[in-house]
Amino acid sequence: MNQQLLANFNKAFESKARLSIMSVLMVNDSLSFNAFKELLGLTDGNLATHLRALEEAGFVSVQKQFIGRKPNTTYSATDTGRQAFTEHLNALEAFIRGI
Amino acid sequence: MNQQLLANFNKAFESKARLSIMSVLMVNDSLSFNAFKELLGLTDGNLATHLRALEEAGFVSVQKQFIGRKPNTTYSATDTGRQAFTEHLNALEAFIRGI
Repeated sequence: MNQQLLANFNKAFESKARLSIMSVLMVNDSLSFNAFKELLGLTDGNLATHLRALEEAGFVSVQKQFIGRKPNTTYSATDTGRQAFTEHLNALEAFIRGI
Repeated sequence: MNQQLLANFNKAFESKARLSIMSVLMVNDSLSFNAFKELLGLTDGNLATHLRALEEAGFVSVQKQFIGRKPNTTYSATDTGRQAFTEHLNALEAFIRGI
């Protein structure tokens, strides 16, 4: 049964928003909150919730700086995050192939 | 950006349980509640909630019969469900390939 193929399915990445956030961070070293907002078309609250959950899971790290006097928050995937996301995608891929 | 590839991502199928339920119904004409329970290792309440949500979305149909005097509830994928699930898997596949 295909469920074994989903052993590495990671609930932290299941939503469209989380898949999108992680895929962006796989190919960009870091991205600002506003760039994410624009790219994903999410509300501030929704985006912040997803980013915080990924941060709490240890999959995303947050950098807070100032550009001049303006605060600028950027996000990066951690090594753990990259590995877990890759495993999640591999699980999905194997699952889809198995159907 | 890969998000466009997720245009057909369907929230109704995002969880591991829903992916598993639908994949089973893609290859089985119908399955009983108890067979699902055994196969997926979900609690009655959890399984019932997922099946009801898929039924309410029009993706799963329910057949209630009696075997002798015992009630037997079975579930099938509807044509709409098969199509929507296929589109969801295609979206995931394209998304994964795009990363």
